[in-house]
Amino acid sequence: MLPWKTILPLNRGSSKPMYLQIVNATIREINRGRLQGGQELPGSRLMAGMLEVNRKTVIQAYDELVAQGWLEIKASRGTFVSTSIPQINYTPLNGEIETPDLRSLDFKHFNFIDGYAIPLHARHFIEDGSPDHRLAPMDWIYKECRSLTRSKAGEKLLKYNDVKGDPKLRQVLAKYLGETRGLPCKPQNILITRGSQMGIYLALGCLLKEGDIGVVGETSYEAADWVFRHLQTDLRRIPVDEEGIQVEALSKLCEQNTVKAVYITPHHHFPSGVTLSNERRIRLLDLAYRQSFAIIEDDYDYDFHYSSSPILPLASLDQHQRVIYIGSFSKIFAPSVRVGYVVASEDLVEQLSRFRRIIDRQGDPIMERVMAEAITEGELQRHLKKSVRIYQSRRDLFCHLLTSTFGDAVEFKVPEGGMAVWVHFKPSFDIEHFLGHCEEKGIYLNVNKDLLQRKRCARMGFASLNEDEIRQAFESIGPLAK
Amino acid sequence: MLPWKTILPLNRGSSKPMYLQIVNATIREINRGRLQGGQELPGSRLMAGMLEVNRKTVIQAYDELVAQGWLEIKASRGTFVSTSIPQINYTPLNGEIETPDLRSLDFKHFNFIDGYAIPLHARHFIEDGSPDHRLAPMDWIYKECRSLTRSKAGEKLLKYNDVKGDPKLRQVLAKYLGETRGLPCKPQNILITRGSQMGIYLALGCLLKEGDIGVVGETSYEAADWVFRHLQTDLRRIPVDEEGIQVEALSKLCEQNTVKAVYITPHHHFPSGVTLSNERRIRLLDLAYRQSFAIIEDDYDYDFHYSSSPILPLASLDQHQRVIYIGSFSKIFAPSVRVGYVVASEDLVEQLSRFRRIIDRQGDPIMERVMAEAITEGELQRHLKKSVRIYQSRRDLFCHLLTSTFGDAVEFKVPEGGMAVWVHFKPSFDIEHFLGHCEEKGIYLNVNKDLLQRKRCARMGFASLNEDEIRQAFESIGPLAK
Repeated sequence: MLPWKTILPLNRGSSKPMYLQIVNATIREINRGRLQGGQELPGSRLMAGMLEVNRKTVIQAYDELVAQGWLEIKASRGTFVSTSIPQINYTPLNGEIETPDLRSLDFKHFNFIDGYAIPLHARHFIEDGSPDHRLAPMDWIYKECRSLTRSKAGEKLLKYNDVKGDPKLRQVLAKYLGETRGLPCKPQNILITRGSQMGIYLALGCLLKEGDIGVVGETSYEAADWVFRHLQTDLRRIPVDEEGIQVEALSKLCEQNTVKAVYITPHHHFPSGVTLSNERRIRLLDLAYRQSFAIIEDDYDYDFHYSSSPILPLASLDQHQRVIYIGSFSKIFAPSVRVGYVVASEDLVEQLSRFRRIIDRQGDPIMERVMAEAITEGELQRHLKKSVRIYQSRRDLFCHLLTSTFGDAVEFKVPEGGMAVWVHFKPSFDIEHFLGHCEEKGIYLNVNKDLLQRKRCARMGFASLNEDEIRQAFESIGPLAK
Repeated sequence: MLPWKTILPLNRGSSKPMYLQIVNATIREINRGRLQGGQELPGSRLMAGMLEVNRKTVIQAYDELVAQGWLEIKASRGTFVSTSIPQINYTPLNGEIETPDLRSLDFKHFNFIDGYAIPLHARHFIEDGSPDHRLAPMDWIYKECRSLTRSKAGEKLLKYNDVKGDPKLRQVLAKYLGETRGLPCKPQNILITRGSQMGIYLALGCLLKEGDIGVVGETSYEAADWVFRHLQTDLRRIPVDEEGIQVEALSKLCEQNTVKAVYITPHHHFPSGVTLSNERRIRLLDLAYRQSFAIIEDDYDYDFHYSSSPILPLASLDQHQRVIYIGSFSKIFAPSVRVGYVVASEDLVEQLSRFRRIIDRQGDPIMERVMAEAITEGELQRHLKKSVRIYQSRRDLFCHLLTSTFGDAVEFKVPEGGMAVWVHFKPSFDIEHFLGHCEEKGIYLNVNKDLLQRKRCARMGFASLNEDEIRQAFESIGPLAK
């Protein structure tokens, strides 16, 4: 007689029914080769005694195992492990379950990509340019979602839908982008994505292959760099100054090389926030046309400007469909609203959408329709008007406190738009000491540490904290800097 | 004097303000090289006369263009196109806007992937195995979303969050998968994705590179095939019979080749619906261990079974972390609910989540938390219980009507689970005629046309139509088949 009580260990504290525990343990042991085809099992009464369970429990377990084909009953002989089970060698286990690893599967390692950890206990969280989700009409958004699902029109949105996105949103957005950004686009030029990141991934994945030359600024958005690296492209960096990326340097690069794509954030260069000058815009477009490369224009914060009107996107000037324009609702409402878009030629949108089909099937049609309603009902415009006003005050306070707290140790320009200020720390400023101090005071600085240490610069977001929080954060920092 | 009225055409019917139309047209013409640096513009009064607009409108436009740096005012001389604008050659346009294409950009073509078109005017829509979203507690789901955003706990979910998914959902799901599927998993073994498709994309993208051998059934899920093709893998097909994929054939393939990954849907083979037998499960796991390949187990409809209990997933038997298990809430509730998950070793989950970071940043934390609540509050279990009962009746009716309508012309097994029946049409049955007939009667058959024509088989979903709709669909088909 096998040691059934050891073979089929039961956990009486578990919420899993006893019979199912017997079923699962039996299957596991058959699979491990410990119970081989033809092995006889004790009668239900005997087994119940050994396992110290009700006989009905064993009968229920045996029935289930027979129904699933693991056991077979031979009339007037007993219950056996099915003889059709193949012979495999028994691997003895140490402890409950072995935990070998997948290393032998030789999978790709993406360790160059930052895992995103949430700082749980920070009293103040200074990040690199997020919106304040507390200002967003989230209640309105989910109220609309809910009423949509109850309506005839909304009901259809619950099925599988167009991979290109909600047709209504594409239509409303085409008009909206034309009016606010001068983009000459039709609904068929728009693919709805999740946030900007998917737009970047789809565009670069469609345009570049291994070894192709891609170009970004000397400093640039890391999450775009990661896509270039993942695609194993030859990523080149060109200098950035007060007018944005140096197009002359790009032009020189093109003399000897075939550049396939340039990723930029011309409205506010990431991370420094400078705006690409008009002259460079014209030169860049001309170069893209002559050299046949694509420009990925990530316009992540077009809607946030405080002084002058924003400069129209590159895409609005593009006459040769060289620009792939990327935007998002995440920065307008809240990071959790995962709706973005790509504007490109109809032909490219078709390819991008097929690529998207295998990554993600489709978007969230309910949320997409609500974004369309947010535009047609003016909710988005009202929210923008309100948050631009509030962010402007926060910017002013933030910049004022930067100066009063750090004095001559910092240099920065008050940003005309966006949600972050680009701060240079003078050589006299002890950055290591500062970082330690922040940690001590419970201030989590979610800025690029490499840039801070190497370039002595930090992109500090002023929009996500309210004025009290900004004051408190600077008060905590204060004693160090004085 | 330049023909300003032609250069700056205005659309008086547009909702876009006149001054902005002048701004945009001027920038476009500067960009095209028609207006070069140093070109003088008429005074505002003169320009207003030519354009037939109010003088204020022109002043507003000039101010904007000066602020943006396109124009400059030279004291007591006039208004000029900024001299810093680089010289580019004027490209004359034919008509309004040129529409060249991006072909010279040489982007990848994904034409092997099916674009998803929505049949708008079909009276009845027979698809290949969708749930009926009308049964789902969508109102409850969005009510919960809404109250979450108002709560302290929910408020945090609106920020940027963990790319691996809502920690609460990972925790709840680990317990749920253990209890319902015998999966020995911890929260850190789970990555929350959008639907199953993203799980497939991430897993194959992590495991395979160009030229690697991937294996699927002779017939298999197309959207997984597309991922293999996109990755330029060497995709091999092995026969499928009444016991699922022929593991013996796979074993032979492994003798001469290094197989890296096998994609299967063992619970119900896609599309035929057969269940992989226990013997083959054990052989397959053993083979995966010995040959070091990964098994991608797509368990898309585990929760739907009508007769016996479902066979536990392969992943529950896996002792060597060879199985990557993929599941989804989309088939449980509605296709629009884009929450799925991957269960794998902690090490692989870490890599998958970094890959996901560059594709999609993160999921939808609000919807993910609501899925956790659906499990802890029993809403999911209640919905499953109800829909399994309803789907079972629909299955019975559907199968009854298949026989009464087509008689001997069809062959099928009543499926024990899932949401579709696999129907063979006998050679005597005129498939072309049938398809034409369906179209005429307003019945949209969203089945794989290639399989229907080549193999004379169709996967027909019975779950998404209610009994009246099923009866009506068969009544419309009726006259042909009799």
